[in-house]
Amino acid sequence: MKMLINAPERVVADALRGMAAAHPELVVDVENRMVVRRDAPVSGKVALVSGGGSGHEPLHAGFVGHGMLDAACPGEVFTSPVPDQAFRAATATDSGAGVLFVVKNYTGDVLNFDMAMELAEDEGVRAARVLVEDDVAVTDSLFTAGRRGTGGTLFVEKLAGAAAEQGAPLETVEALARRVAEACRSYGVALGPCSTPAKGGPTFDLPTGELELGIGIHGEPGRERRAMMTAAEIAEVTVDALLEDLGGPPTGRPFLALVNGMGATPLLELYGFNAEVQRVLAERGAVVARTLVGNYVTSLDMAGCSVTLCEADEELLRLWDAPVSTAALRWGR
Amino acid sequence: MKMLINAPERVVADALRGMAAAHPELVVDVENRMVVRRDAPVSGKVALVSGGGSGHEPLHAGFVGHGMLDAACPGEVFTSPVPDQAFRAATATDSGAGVLFVVKNYTGDVLNFDMAMELAEDEGVRAARVLVEDDVAVTDSLFTAGRRGTGGTLFVEKLAGAAAEQGAPLETVEALARRVAEACRSYGVALGPCSTPAKGGPTFDLPTGELELGIGIHGEPGRERRAMMTAAEIAEVTVDALLEDLGGPPTGRPFLALVNGMGATPLLELYGFNAEVQRVLAERGAVVARTLVGNYVTSLDMAGCSVTLCEADEELLRLWDAPVSTAALRWGR
Repeated sequence: MKMLINAPERVVADALRGMAAAHPELVVDVENRMVVRRDAPVSGKVALVSGGGSGHEPLHAGFVGHGMLDAACPGEVFTSPVPDQAFRAATATDSGAGVLFVVKNYTGDVLNFDMAMELAEDEGVRAARVLVEDDVAVTDSLFTAGRRGTGGTLFVEKLAGAAAEQGAPLETVEALARRVAEACRSYGVALGPCSTPAKGGPTFDLPTGELELGIGIHGEPGRERRAMMTAAEIAEVTVDALLEDLGGPPTGRPFLALVNGMGATPLLELYGFNAEVQRVLAERGAVVARTLVGNYVTSLDMAGCSVTLCEADEELLRLWDAPVSTAALRWGR
Repeated sequence: MKMLINAPERVVADALRGMAAAHPELVVDVENRMVVRRDAPVSGKVALVSGGGSGHEPLHAGFVGHGMLDAACPGEVFTSPVPDQAFRAATATDSGAGVLFVVKNYTGDVLNFDMAMELAEDEGVRAARVLVEDDVAVTDSLFTAGRRGTGGTLFVEKLAGAAAEQGAPLETVEALARRVAEACRSYGVALGPCSTPAKGGPTFDLPTGELELGIGIHGEPGRERRAMMTAAEIAEVTVDALLEDLGGPPTGRPFLALVNGMGATPLLELYGFNAEVQRVLAERGAVVARTLVGNYVTSLDMAGCSVTLCEADEELLRLWDAPVSTAALRWGR
């Protein structure tokens, strides 16, 4: 597999150097592997810190900025960041109002962020943690006890980030983040595998004419393999898996929807897939208030897509529409 | 090749339906294949209309909105829009201040937009046209007499769009667009081919261990094939091709830079490549004022990248920084 890289061991550092060059509004610490808002710590504001293995870009570093994250800690590709990264990010961004760690549910991430939280608390930083475990496809995967954290992370970071930006205290931001995490459901489909720089080739085989349903964002196995399906059929399987897990479409409450590309699927196809997702949701009686289509929580060069639904209310809609200014998500100011 | 589609002949219509669902701020006319600003025609404002074959998303429909295009006309995949599409888009967006067509230099596009311009003028619409022909790799390709139009289109649409939004008259917007088109140079590299829905498979073969330099955005042949190179080496070849064509780095004038993904190359790799592009530019004595990294002018699921440089001055920097609010490019408001 050909890659646009210098060497596997340099991929993350090189990307951070390139991010620094493109985004003077961010402080990129290549050595300590963190990306921080230039205006951090923001006086009186709760800081949001996230991170995880690299390979899911723009998640998380692309979401650092006004109205979303204060810092992100990228690990090596598909590898958790070390506790020291998250600890440094917390102390770099804490204004005294406390730090909320947004953690995707992978065993290494949970352990290392927990350790970072302890280190931060030892330094007098008030810290809390929210776990994102939104993938309905499988429980207890290769990388996780319990559900995997995937696309729901974007909603937690955006909505809790907006609340923090508006001055909510730590307890409120934490409760809101937990509420959003609980309101999110995701389901992913792979049409082709991803290739990691270290391996230099595909992480799994997916025969011609087959797709894999319920895939994770590291090429973990999903629920089942089936013969290739149309976009309409994939939308039906996906939406029905999400609604089944939710116990049916919510009555009187709209969804926020993310129709997400895994990396190598063209935007043209993602928009076409979105048409089918919206059709199926409407047929099932679900109302969608906002939809985001694009590559936001990826798996390197995997071909495929995922759908995340977040049950919303007036408060969450207001927080969604609040200004955000990051490398990958930007509106309202 | 597995694709997230319903059927090859439905790809563009499906994508437009999905775009309509995700972007209520746009008027998407699926039947007539055009995407228009909801507030068009904007009183007193010159309208910018572009379009071309689909498969390069977010170009052009993703650039419709405040500060950029008034309308986009998507053709079938890698196929020029018909004259009627561009004519309708012109009459839908003309406020009386006139219409500027932004046309990438492909034989079909040029013919069809010229016909649209005649039709529009017959209806009393003042119309002008700017041709983008920024690809330094080859002259007279499969699809083109002269240089191909690629990444430079983004700069023409952004900068002329900003001037039009600020109320500049047609002659000024046209002259500015022409100046920008002349100031842009692009060069692309393919690591893997793209697959079109109609063909259902790769449009060309690229053996393991080789890349193709000077590729176009439809899988057209480039300058040469070579053994696979590192990101650093690809950046050197690319930047040197651009600077050679410019007659060396400009003295005292900065570049706007686009480090663009062709579709399937992960953002992680594009940022790492940007680090090398910036290094080489600095070593050659060039100054970069603004850099955009991401998938903006793509070729379906092609793996690879392109670099566009636009020689700027104070006026162009101001226009670059001016507010823009589109599906794919958004800042400043």
